[in-house]
Amino acid sequence: MKKLFYILLFFSVAVSAQIDRVEPPFWWSGMNHSELQIMFYGKGIAQYTPVVSDDIVITNVVKTENPNYVFVTIDTKDIPASDFVFSFKNKNKTVFTHKYSLKQRREGAALREGFDSSDLIYLIMPDRFANGNPDNDNVKGMEDKADRNEPFGRHGGDIQGIINNLDYINQLGATAIWSTPLCEDNHEKGSYHGYAQTDVYKIDPRYGTNEDYLQLSQELKERDMKLIMDYVTNHWGSGHWMYKDLPTYNWVHQFPGYAQSNYRMTTQFDPNASEIDTKYCMNGWFVSDMPDLNQSNPLVLNYLTQNAIWWIEYADLDGFRVDTYSYNDKEGIAKWTKAIMDEYPHFNIVGEVWMHDQAQMAYWQKDSKIAAIQSYNSYLPSVMDFTLHDAFGNVFNEDKPGWDSGMQKVYDNFTNDFLYSDINNILVFAENHDTGRFNEIYKNDFNKYKMAMTLLATVRGIPQIYYGTEIGMAGDKGKGDGDIRRDFPGGWNGDKNNAFTQSGRTAEQQKWFDFSSKLFNWRKSKEVIHTGKTTHYLPWNNVYVYFRHNDKESVMVLINNSDEAQTVKTDRFAESLTTHKKGKSVLEGKMMDVTKDITMQPKSVLLLELQ
Amino acid sequence: MKKLFYILLFFSVAVSAQIDRVEPPFWWSGMNHSELQIMFYGKGIAQYTPVVSDDIVITNVVKTENPNYVFVTIDTKDIPASDFVFSFKNKNKTVFTHKYSLKQRREGAALREGFDSSDLIYLIMPDRFANGNPDNDNVKGMEDKADRNEPFGRHGGDIQGIINNLDYINQLGATAIWSTPLCEDNHEKGSYHGYAQTDVYKIDPRYGTNEDYLQLSQELKERDMKLIMDYVTNHWGSGHWMYKDLPTYNWVHQFPGYAQSNYRMTTQFDPNASEIDTKYCMNGWFVSDMPDLNQSNPLVLNYLTQNAIWWIEYADLDGFRVDTYSYNDKEGIAKWTKAIMDEYPHFNIVGEVWMHDQAQMAYWQKDSKIAAIQSYNSYLPSVMDFTLHDAFGNVFNEDKPGWDSGMQKVYDNFTNDFLYSDINNILVFAENHDTGRFNEIYKNDFNKYKMAMTLLATVRGIPQIYYGTEIGMAGDKGKGDGDIRRDFPGGWNGDKNNAFTQSGRTAEQQKWFDFSSKLFNWRKSKEVIHTGKTTHYLPWNNVYVYFRHNDKESVMVLINNSDEAQTVKTDRFAESLTTHKKGKSVLEGKMMDVTKDITMQPKSVLLLELQ
Repeated sequence: MKKLFYILLFFSVAVSAQIDRVEPPFWWSGMNHSELQIMFYGKGIAQYTPVVSDDIVITNVVKTENPNYVFVTIDTKDIPASDFVFSFKNKNKTVFTHKYSLKQRREGAALREGFDSSDLIYLIMPDRFANGNPDNDNVKGMEDKADRNEPFGRHGGDIQGIINNLDYINQLGATAIWSTPLCEDNHEKGSYHGYAQTDVYKIDPRYGTNEDYLQLSQELKERDMKLIMDYVTNHWGSGHWMYKDLPTYNWVHQFPGYAQSNYRMTTQFDPNASEIDTKYCMNGWFVSDMPDLNQSNPLVLNYLTQNAIWWIEYADLDGFRVDTYSYNDKEGIAKWTKAIMDEYPHFNIVGEVWMHDQAQMAYWQKDSKIAAIQSYNSYLPSVMDFTLHDAFGNVFNEDKPGWDSGMQKVYDNFTNDFLYSDINNILVFAENHDTGRFNEIYKNDFNKYKMAMTLLATVRGIPQIYYGTEIGMAGDKGKGDGDIRRDFPGGWNGDKNNAFTQSGRTAEQQKWFDFSSKLFNWRKSKEVIHTGKTTHYLPWNNVYVYFRHNDKESVMVLINNSDEAQTVKTDRFAESLTTHKKGKSVLEGKMMDVTKDITMQPKSVLLLELQ
Repeated sequence: MKKLFYILLFFSVAVSAQIDRVEPPFWWSGMNHSELQIMFYGKGIAQYTPVVSDDIVITNVVKTENPNYVFVTIDTKDIPASDFVFSFKNKNKTVFTHKYSLKQRREGAALREGFDSSDLIYLIMPDRFANGNPDNDNVKGMEDKADRNEPFGRHGGDIQGIINNLDYINQLGATAIWSTPLCEDNHEKGSYHGYAQTDVYKIDPRYGTNEDYLQLSQELKERDMKLIMDYVTNHWGSGHWMYKDLPTYNWVHQFPGYAQSNYRMTTQFDPNASEIDTKYCMNGWFVSDMPDLNQSNPLVLNYLTQNAIWWIEYADLDGFRVDTYSYNDKEGIAKWTKAIMDEYPHFNIVGEVWMHDQAQMAYWQKDSKIAAIQSYNSYLPSVMDFTLHDAFGNVFNEDKPGWDSGMQKVYDNFTNDFLYSDINNILVFAENHDTGRFNEIYKNDFNKYKMAMTLLATVRGIPQIYYGTEIGMAGDKGKGDGDIRRDFPGGWNGDKNNAFTQSGRTAEQQKWFDFSSKLFNWRKSKEVIHTGKTTHYLPWNNVYVYFRHNDKESVMVLINNSDEAQTVKTDRFAESLTTHKKGKSVLEGKMMDVTKDITMQPKSVLLLELQ
């Protein structure tokens, strides 16, 4: 046996040029997903017969119309961590070989706990956050070169930049990081956003290496923080190596080639929708340079599933944010999601379901009673509260009470909470990398910022903030995405303003940071905010009052969104105040008598721990 | 026995002044609702003991804190139609008596078929439709006197006026009438709308008599048309005789006395709502002169239930429209609705659930999967499509294509159809007596009228039109409700313009009527419209195309809401056109080739029967 191995090794070296890619590059022993389908890629590889060493059993071999691919399924059940060898034979002659590894899993890998409502997520666009390693700004073979003057160009931010500033993020009070995609996106232009990936097993070298990504994860864990990967199931970039040599014609949706999505996600559940509209939503391409993946092809689905699991296991991830979730093949994406959750039952995945109707958003959450009307279950644990986001975008400019404006719009958003199957597992956010920046919309009004962030940090769900807002960064969506993705000041050598450090911040930045840090750090240990029940009261005079409460404690939030001072009569809240007589103001530290009227300044907020 | 009867009769005559009201005034033999609770009202009546003749069994007697009421329950099961006598005794002495009747039911009364999607409902405000009997314009004892110059005053319209013009309504193609309330509303001012009732067992004498109402029903039946009564469970008028001498303090919701509803119907399902807000929604009064009925009091609930059943049986009704449905006691109104539907399993009831979120509206429909999340079932068969109404109010002025405007807004409304438990049993309407008038909003644009009415007449659900619109009547909600409730021309003696007759109509009125009549009469026999499946296509260039189809036939509707001519490529509709090559235009009678492009004029509609 050993002798054979060396002989094989010899052949492998001799003809190794014929295997260009093996994916997943390795796997782990003891996975639930034990049927492992390995894709071998090399010129003409399909003409050879794969054989494997030791006790491994090949359960299936799939060849496609493209002779450069072969998909070999092995059963890894009960196989200990080990190396073994694939041989590709021409009749009985081994033409080349490939050593493959089943690695040892980390302890507790299967039962990892994903991010949850105890977390506060800090969303980063890595190209625009901090340039920790200027040496990788330009990398040979990577087409798009660094140019900080170009809003749609690469600016040089990288993983090392994030690692360098983890203490800053930790100090701010965030407990998890969601970085927009870091895998290779090798296109000539606009590649900085990373959503048009060209190799989903490799960190883009301008961000660093796979090892750097793993290090980021470990550094986070050392700080008791979590890492959320931005995963894209719906499409790849047109420069993806596999798109250039498709395994099967239907690996992507063909019309033939590109056809634009109609973006009408309602077709995914509308009983009246025509088949053609439904097809163009699901199968149409998001943009012309992002080929739309066909998850109804089991090879594609399995490729994406294994890739996702590979990253979780490799980089010790705590969650996924899944891009354009509701544009995927509806059945395929549910299978993908279920497979991951079967592998990691306590993991978390939040899907981007960018709709403006709560029943439609709730449809996509796991065990939705609404989706059950159509016998559908996405298995997606978490969705994003886009209707609350819609409200964040205008209510703080609505000074006067209205039937459905100002704080009433915020209140109204929560009246449909029962539509969601898990109300705590919902991402709440005022902005992200695709929307207008909060500080732009509200012209850096600090009072409005305080109201908004207090709201965000105290309502049900998982708050997500967007890099830089905490020090007052603005950016105009109207000027294009580049403007809402500006460089974080201090992330680049030579930046005159370094907002990562107290000494480097302007007084204004410090004011914003101090408030944010105090609020977010307070939230960390507040179980009553993480999982408490909500009781809210109809806004009167544009003042919104709500309580978060559990058996142990109670927090009262008062937001005066009116541009006039308002006197709040507290006797109306008797059922929530119960026997509490005082409230300690978290932000100002002062004690308030809650049995008496509370006078609130215009555009102000009070966050009270009841005592 | 007979001798006793005459003796009792003698007493009855002698002291009859002591019974002022008996409700229900009579009942029927063979009702499912066989436990009949009769309310006797008279000064001090509670001091006497009720006894009943023959084989009738009194199963319960309820006295309240008000000695002028006694509620006597008898078991009518297996009791044939008959008269019997109640005696009220003081010890063994009969003080007075009351003869009561169980009548014979009409054949098939229990299994009556309610209105459904084969119907088209004509909504009338009776005071403003036609004055068939000028003698009852003013009636002694009724405070509000007729004054046609007063927009909020009574104008003299009545039941005879409706009866006189049934042929007109029939000719128009409507198959059912919903009249706003006809029961007594005896207040000094604003009584014409009838929603503040003062006697719910009696037609307001200014509209006619109970017998007149029965005659209206019979006249409708002779024309194969249906009658829908507007029922108000939520409140009465402050002049209601019973409110002036309340049976129990909690017969109405007391704060004490009046407190205004907060009108926030979301509190009825919002899991975060405070108890006090929920209470003020349900129990607060709609307006200060409409005491809010407490359906959680079984006496009240039963009174309302029996009253409703009494009218169905008495006037041979085909349906109810229930006012302010979602302001009622949530549990009480479900019991009321269920009791009626148990009595008449094929009856129909449509509730006014005036919300702007489809999940919230769908919540209130019988067997809603959304309400089931909270283990609630209203048992209400039908709700109103208020979001479609919202669209009717502006889309026809939205000439250019938009992401969520124009025909897209209409399309979007139907994408959530799966939220409703019975999509055919939904009232669709462009306007009603509480909203802006269509012809006012669109300045009597005939093309817009044609688009809107074709839409209304061909989408799923039960179309409802509002009196006068069919001849071009307008009215500005901004000027007050009086203006949207103008007199129908020709309804009053001496009216110069009589739009009820062809000879009396202006050319413009005739044009509107001809179109409407053709469309609505065509709809009558179109099962494919009543119950067919819908397939719709994403609007392109503000042109909305949809098909109604069943096994037998297929109808294609094209609405060009653009202000430019549009060429519609029909190959996109292949899945719906199937083998059809031609379409007969219902409105113009011409044949169209549907295999070729169809050019549509700006703001135009095509209604094609495919062949």
